[in-house]
Amino acid sequence: MSCINVALLGFGTVGKGVYQSIDSHQTRLEKVLGKRVKVIAVLVENLEKHKNFKEEGVLLTDRFEDILALPDLQVVVDAIVGCEPGNTYLKKVIKKGCHVVTANKEMFAQHGEELIVLAKENHVTIGFEATVGGGIPVIQTIKQLLQVNRVKKIEAILNGTSNFILTSMRKDGHSFDVTLELAQQNGYAESDPSNDIEGYDAFYKGLVLSQLIYGETPENKTTIRRGITNITSDFIQRVNELGLRFRHIVTLYKASGQIYCKSEPALVSSEHPFYQVEGVQNGVSIYTDLVGNIQLNGPGAGMFPTASAILEDIIQINREVSAEPSFIEFQEDGEDTSNWVLLSDKTDIKLPYETKVLARSDEKTIILATDNIEKILTENPLASCFALKGAFQHTPEKVII
Amino acid sequence: MSCINVALLGFGTVGKGVYQSIDSHQTRLEKVLGKRVKVIAVLVENLEKHKNFKEEGVLLTDRFEDILALPDLQVVVDAIVGCEPGNTYLKKVIKKGCHVVTANKEMFAQHGEELIVLAKENHVTIGFEATVGGGIPVIQTIKQLLQVNRVKKIEAILNGTSNFILTSMRKDGHSFDVTLELAQQNGYAESDPSNDIEGYDAFYKGLVLSQLIYGETPENKTTIRRGITNITSDFIQRVNELGLRFRHIVTLYKASGQIYCKSEPALVSSEHPFYQVEGVQNGVSIYTDLVGNIQLNGPGAGMFPTASAILEDIIQINREVSAEPSFIEFQEDGEDTSNWVLLSDKTDIKLPYETKVLARSDEKTIILATDNIEKILTENPLASCFALKGAFQHTPEKVII
Repeated sequence: MSCINVALLGFGTVGKGVYQSIDSHQTRLEKVLGKRVKVIAVLVENLEKHKNFKEEGVLLTDRFEDILALPDLQVVVDAIVGCEPGNTYLKKVIKKGCHVVTANKEMFAQHGEELIVLAKENHVTIGFEATVGGGIPVIQTIKQLLQVNRVKKIEAILNGTSNFILTSMRKDGHSFDVTLELAQQNGYAESDPSNDIEGYDAFYKGLVLSQLIYGETPENKTTIRRGITNITSDFIQRVNELGLRFRHIVTLYKASGQIYCKSEPALVSSEHPFYQVEGVQNGVSIYTDLVGNIQLNGPGAGMFPTASAILEDIIQINREVSAEPSFIEFQEDGEDTSNWVLLSDKTDIKLPYETKVLARSDEKTIILATDNIEKILTENPLASCFALKGAFQHTPEKVII
Repeated sequence: MSCINVALLGFGTVGKGVYQSIDSHQTRLEKVLGKRVKVIAVLVENLEKHKNFKEEGVLLTDRFEDILALPDLQVVVDAIVGCEPGNTYLKKVIKKGCHVVTANKEMFAQHGEELIVLAKENHVTIGFEATVGGGIPVIQTIKQLLQVNRVKKIEAILNGTSNFILTSMRKDGHSFDVTLELAQQNGYAESDPSNDIEGYDAFYKGLVLSQLIYGETPENKTTIRRGITNITSDFIQRVNELGLRFRHIVTLYKASGQIYCKSEPALVSSEHPFYQVEGVQNGVSIYTDLVGNIQLNGPGAGMFPTASAILEDIIQINREVSAEPSFIEFQEDGEDTSNWVLLSDKTDIKLPYETKVLARSDEKTIILATDNIEKILTENPLASCFALKGAFQHTPEKVII
């Protein structure tokens, strides 16, 4: 039986997950592909750290040149973190004619556009299902919907670490610092957590989705990137009494020819689907013209969910004969939903500057935000409603909280 | 530009939705496929009813023979309701060498297996995304997951009519009969609603999923098909006070070599993801070995969501060169989660015979059911917990309610 030869760049959690999953799911892969999938080389930074790794027929090396010199290599899996050396490596293997599968969101957010062009020129494919939403098939689902639908807006919880911290702070009442330490002890946060808690990781994933949907990433001036570090336990408890929960949410849409990508904390009401997306879970809400709203929830990270996404890409690459169609040309302007702020007048709670509140009435989502506010009438017995001065299209029929 | 010629069997809501969507999304289809998609014929039951339909180049006919005689037909869309004449028609067009896309769950639940075999023999493809979950890409997502993952269990709200009635009864306090009438007035229920409210429609969709995942449908003795007709408004209000909501849920899994498919009402707690799936929405929860649990929510029916699913299939058929791989051989036994019953001892509420309760602790779902009960200990202050006598694997770490 012939083989699909794979090289792994990086052998941390993701790399090891891919290695083990290929091993444990070999029979299935053979049946689906009619070929074995074989890891023939692994690139590591520090050979000493992996001296116990001894597998026959697998080259373990710390020199990228060794990977590039492999004579019969079909797929390279990028499981390195950060822009470099990942980007440089991938350019070289693409030029060599290898297909590429990447889990590296930071790199792909910043260099995806040029890599896709380069891959097309070299008649190879780039899979990036693992860059967004871990094991949730976000990329594939959006690709499928885009074939027919116009995607108007994405709202998504894309950083499991932030969601875990916000959930734990609410449930246990601990401070941000204590909860972060707990998350680090449980492997839910890195020793340097800034990528997660400062909103960068979610923002990168938003950029990957922007590339997928609009074929380009937004300009700096139409982006927001804020983390969860200034959300106190006290504040979480107090909004909890109002029936609201904090989520870190990426919002992506296009209006008046501009792409907007906002990665920031928001409050959701109990009727909003993100209210139940707890712990390390991710949630992706896709608004389209024909289908309406679809939501996907699931594990956004983890060794095996991510490995599963990478294996799906490897399969997809080897099953697809024609190139992916270009979806990006068809995305007309999306719509920004109304912006509202909800400030309770029955308590002394004041929402911090620019905290959005997402509430969902029966069929529609209303974004509520605290920027340049102007009072409007509401029949809501619990709270007064303030509308954003500035551009919004319509008055919500009902505000639930 | 060359054309993909399509014939529509049936011109009700689904057929019209497909016709209109092909028209309104022609530019997009051309870009994705490099070809125009053209409806060249429509089969109707009663020509008189459609006498105002006059489109140049579209044959409107009440004779299936006219469809079969079309010289250059690539795709036939089955938008008829019920087993016959759909099944007979599809067999004939498959033998003629046409690809088939169907939205007919009842027919496909009962004849899908033979149609798939027949299609393979004739080197054509059958798309059935529209049979389950309307615009939610349930079939495609499961296919993608199955390439790598083992699917252990599906739990799903698949009948929007039942979910609409249960939601309205809780919110408005009306009786079942009044709410059903309301649903009929709003177009959410048919004039003969028995397919929906007796659990048949959801059951058929469960059978389609069984075919997709296991390659076969279960035997009668391992299936349950119950509707929502004996759920009273009073009972809904009283369990609501306990923090529980009624959902009509299809559960599909394999244990000891037997496929189980249960279509029946169940109660969900507020931490369960189906708690928020309200109104005509559908929800599908997929349990897999590598990825864990993924949930998809969205509109399970409707003219344009269903049309979108059908158009996705038409595109898929015309983009795919090789036949679908056969996923079905790899589904080893799934696991039935523990069966538990939760009966409150602080109230006089008794759950009716065999009503399941689904509650979700942090990471795991526990099914609770009232069959052959045996008391077990629980620290839960609100309720005593009773375990099912019989086969269950493990004690839940925590029961939330």
